[in-house]
Amino acid sequence: MDLNSIKNPQDIKNYTKEELIDLASEIRTFLIEKLSVTGGHLGPNLGVVELTIALHKLFDSPKDKFIWDVGHQAYVHKILTGRADQFDTLRQYKGLCGFPKMIESEHDVWETGHSSTSLSAAMGMAAARDLMGTDDKVIPIIGDGALTGGMALEALNHIGHEQTDMIVILNDNEMSIAPNVGALHSVLGRLRTAGKYKKAKEELEGLLMKIPAFGGKIAATAEKLKDTLKYMLVSGIFFEELGFTYLGPVNGHDMDDLIETLSYAKKTKGPVIVHVLTKKGKGFKSAENDEIGTWHGVGPYKIESGEQVKPKAAAPGYSKTVSDTLIKIAKTNEKIAVITPAMTVGSKLEGFGKEFPKRLFDVGIAEQHATTMAGGMATQGMKPVLSIYSTFLQRGYDQVVHDICRQNLNVFFAIDRAGLVGADGETHQGVFDVAFLRHIPNMVVMMPKDENECQHMVYTASQYNEGPIAVRYPRGNGIGIPMDDQLKEIPIGSWEVIEEGTDIAILTFSQNMIQMALKAHEKLKQVGISANIVNARFIKPLDEAMLTDIAKAKMPIITLEEAALQGGFGSSVLEFMQENGFYDTVVDRMGIPDRFIEHGSVNQLLEEIGLTSNDLVERAEKLLPKKRQRA
Amino acid sequence: MDLNSIKNPQDIKNYTKEELIDLASEIRTFLIEKLSVTGGHLGPNLGVVELTIALHKLFDSPKDKFIWDVGHQAYVHKILTGRADQFDTLRQYKGLCGFPKMIESEHDVWETGHSSTSLSAAMGMAAARDLMGTDDKVIPIIGDGALTGGMALEALNHIGHEQTDMIVILNDNEMSIAPNVGALHSVLGRLRTAGKYKKAKEELEGLLMKIPAFGGKIAATAEKLKDTLKYMLVSGIFFEELGFTYLGPVNGHDMDDLIETLSYAKKTKGPVIVHVLTKKGKGFKSAENDEIGTWHGVGPYKIESGEQVKPKAAAPGYSKTVSDTLIKIAKTNEKIAVITPAMTVGSKLEGFGKEFPKRLFDVGIAEQHATTMAGGMATQGMKPVLSIYSTFLQRGYDQVVHDICRQNLNVFFAIDRAGLVGADGETHQGVFDVAFLRHIPNMVVMMPKDENECQHMVYTASQYNEGPIAVRYPRGNGIGIPMDDQLKEIPIGSWEVIEEGTDIAILTFSQNMIQMALKAHEKLKQVGISANIVNARFIKPLDEAMLTDIAKAKMPIITLEEAALQGGFGSSVLEFMQENGFYDTVVDRMGIPDRFIEHGSVNQLLEEIGLTSNDLVERAEKLLPKKRQRA
Repeated sequence: MDLNSIKNPQDIKNYTKEELIDLASEIRTFLIEKLSVTGGHLGPNLGVVELTIALHKLFDSPKDKFIWDVGHQAYVHKILTGRADQFDTLRQYKGLCGFPKMIESEHDVWETGHSSTSLSAAMGMAAARDLMGTDDKVIPIIGDGALTGGMALEALNHIGHEQTDMIVILNDNEMSIAPNVGALHSVLGRLRTAGKYKKAKEELEGLLMKIPAFGGKIAATAEKLKDTLKYMLVSGIFFEELGFTYLGPVNGHDMDDLIETLSYAKKTKGPVIVHVLTKKGKGFKSAENDEIGTWHGVGPYKIESGEQVKPKAAAPGYSKTVSDTLIKIAKTNEKIAVITPAMTVGSKLEGFGKEFPKRLFDVGIAEQHATTMAGGMATQGMKPVLSIYSTFLQRGYDQVVHDICRQNLNVFFAIDRAGLVGADGETHQGVFDVAFLRHIPNMVVMMPKDENECQHMVYTASQYNEGPIAVRYPRGNGIGIPMDDQLKEIPIGSWEVIEEGTDIAILTFSQNMIQMALKAHEKLKQVGISANIVNARFIKPLDEAMLTDIAKAKMPIITLEEAALQGGFGSSVLEFMQENGFYDTVVDRMGIPDRFIEHGSVNQLLEEIGLTSNDLVERAEKLLPKKRQRA
Repeated sequence: MDLNSIKNPQDIKNYTKEELIDLASEIRTFLIEKLSVTGGHLGPNLGVVELTIALHKLFDSPKDKFIWDVGHQAYVHKILTGRADQFDTLRQYKGLCGFPKMIESEHDVWETGHSSTSLSAAMGMAAARDLMGTDDKVIPIIGDGALTGGMALEALNHIGHEQTDMIVILNDNEMSIAPNVGALHSVLGRLRTAGKYKKAKEELEGLLMKIPAFGGKIAATAEKLKDTLKYMLVSGIFFEELGFTYLGPVNGHDMDDLIETLSYAKKTKGPVIVHVLTKKGKGFKSAENDEIGTWHGVGPYKIESGEQVKPKAAAPGYSKTVSDTLIKIAKTNEKIAVITPAMTVGSKLEGFGKEFPKRLFDVGIAEQHATTMAGGMATQGMKPVLSIYSTFLQRGYDQVVHDICRQNLNVFFAIDRAGLVGADGETHQGVFDVAFLRHIPNMVVMMPKDENECQHMVYTASQYNEGPIAVRYPRGNGIGIPMDDQLKEIPIGSWEVIEEGTDIAILTFSQNMIQMALKAHEKLKQVGISANIVNARFIKPLDEAMLTDIAKAKMPIITLEEAALQGGFGSSVLEFMQENGFYDTVVDRMGIPDRFIEHGSVNQLLEEIGLTSNDLVERAEKLLPKKRQRA
């Protein structure tokens, strides 16, 4: 079968069960082959092959609405909705997006990227349906990991209360991004065990009918009975308590089981939860055996050996640098503890966890809790490090404002993936944290120019005791410069001049932007312009002394940031000039424009938005006559 | 007994049970009297009198840590920790804060205001305790309403998993701020019913021991048995499933019951949840009978008659104006539906709910879910209105970015309590939304100068179909101008000149600031300065044509906002001038400085931070010579 020939899910409606099973097998082969070249979210998609096929067989997309929570498991859905032929461009610039995308297909009715949004979106769609009097089915598909996110629990609570018609697919794959944590996971764990007994619930209910047969045993061991009954009721009681009809557990790789249960769900009124057990990586040995998430999102790999083809890094990665530095510091500083919302692997914290098992808290997908928990620890004299991706810190914004900054607590934010992240695209770009952190009182925010400065910033943050402090650092690797043996503190609010110059001041931060400015510096030199390149490593507070000097020298300024321009670092420089009466300082701002930035390589994206050394040279040349007129 | 004589909770340690009961009675009388003058959160505090006394009797604050979720129920705690003598200044400028406040007392170990943070803070404190090897008790006190907030559920999940020693007090008062909603509430409702039977659980367990006595009945009505058993297990199974030891339900107004159960909890290892049933307003008839939250937070009232002394409003309140306008619009526009996170009463949505019961969704304290649910509705062609306080929208920031603005969905944000809110203080000031919304792509943000413009803005937002749009409006009343009969659309991004002038341009928005600018305009006229007063009613997008005219006229500009200065509206004007090459336009910004603003009347606060007409006149006079030099 040529998967490219599937233009529409209607094409598989008449498939027999055997044909559907064949299709599953072909899709697996397709995914394993395609992703071995492009990379992508292999594990999650191999886990939902049968489930996705069964859903499209039984329901009528796009009238019926599939909402893929997180969304990185929508590849099979993309194949069944006519996009197989685009997989060579997966996650590449202008290519197929790694997440659902409305402009790609009418079958993508909701876009995801961040976790735990599907139930709320589904509730909105279902409420709209009921008000408008249509009869489409709304079907969110959510993983057990995403279910621990607060907003998913808020939604479950509301849906259960409203008794809205909806079929929630709980895709229980035992492992979210990393091994799952949390009590809710234990509940699911027990359900999973129950799954060994097919239709455990019905059987046990039948058993109950024959209770007298148990005779004296019951009376003698009431505790045991309680457990048995609990065992029965636990198959779903958690969800039933919330008002859902619970169906399952279903073997997510058994087409019969899936179709039977989903058909039943289709006929059931009110909110239904179908508990589907799946195995991430199903059908690809290396991924099936993956315990820690190595095959969750991957780069290219060799199919035969299952070996991931990692490009040799010229320098240590930033996540690793931060993590290693924290280990170093934590050896003598007992106040250090690290909290991560399900990103132990992503932020390379395994080493820290091995060294200090009691001082690493992986709280699951729970950014709000993680943030405020860090605050609680700080009130007791600890120095908690909240290790969190920039884009996920968005979910803790209120907690940063209300709990951490307002109480001025000593929380150290280690903000990973700050700046453009590349292939994950617009849902994951870490470009808003500069704007949303710098307007919060008491916050200190810094970003290193290279991995060596990064380790010193981590140390600086660990030593700082006057309130919240953040080190933001990019996805990817350093530049390969030697690392100092001795960690040192960087004075808060101090910038450094990297290249002295007299004609124009370039104020910037981050490895990408500093490197780009240095390139521009060379080019400008060739046309006789002397640029003063400043590593504005503190985004807040600014280096006011240096800014004053630059203003007094009447140097025009270009600010440069791999972050949103609105309200960003450049704006803070404008604000400084205004507040200090330097009304005639010319400031030009370069950064990320007021729109969302899609997926692609970081360099492609920087080129698209005009953040290259050529762009900088051009802007400098344009600006300079003004300076000269003034001089 | 003189409550002022209680300087420390140690003072009540030796009280007999009878003395504790007397104390409760005196505290009730004290609260009813004091709050009849100052106003405050009467209902919640009357509900926790015995509970708070019992907690202080049994535990050793501040070594043992009480964490008051939301925090408006901490008055009794304040009395017992030596602050009775400050109640005449409650919620007043420089007076006693209405929420826990570390600088007031060592017994306030965590500050609250927003809901649902206590469990995460407690987890942080408990984790710190366990790492440091101390043995203090950590005791969060959380209401049933706050429990539906996502971060509280995230925390429950994590605490249950870690099996951390902690005593969670579930203060189940049946009513959060408004009547509670949500399935979780149904669960609690069933527990509450169970509470009629003292120690229902033990009794039913005892009953179970005698099961054979039921005889044939069991076999015959297995379904019924299931209900019975479920009934037994439901007393706590929800929490027990999450790993907690469940104790209760306890009568929260019975000192014996409280002390007995709390003593047991004190000895229990791992996480414990003590389910305490309380009655909001207990001991004050009018408040006890309150079904909808009228006595939750009150102004002054007459003790005898239970009549609330409401100052006669000279003009309609903004919340009411928005709500009434929505009713008007919804009559012909079926696409309008309103979502509120537990603020039906606060935002005066009862009328809308009465008129369109199916089109009002009170989702409980669940801001994240509310935001994304609105997005889901918008994808189906509805025009959802998310009615939400500015300060609570902070909790939906990621959802605004990731779900609404990124997908450019037609969600109408009705942002209540924007600007300074007064007595609720720093946790509730609505001063960050300008900065955190305007940097999000696709967002439109406006704010009316008076109630008449407000209704037109609501209409404008309801008609807008190009993406998300927000109307922010203040707490309090309009100015009493006539309301137009006909609703009209205001062109997106259009400002209006309110007073023509030639010397200086004042760009501002909001009723408070416009009124203040008009006052300043008069004063400036007297010293011969002609100020151009602009109602900059669109915060995003700016009125670029008008800004260009002003820049070309070489008028210096003062921007004025009752919002955070960093990254705020004034900064957007700076950005505009820079982006358009108006490097020599002088812009001066007035607004809320980079610190948190405490409680007090709005006028007192505006004076404190320099946002009065005199301040504006002074700034204008300072700025003008510059303009003249340039001219």
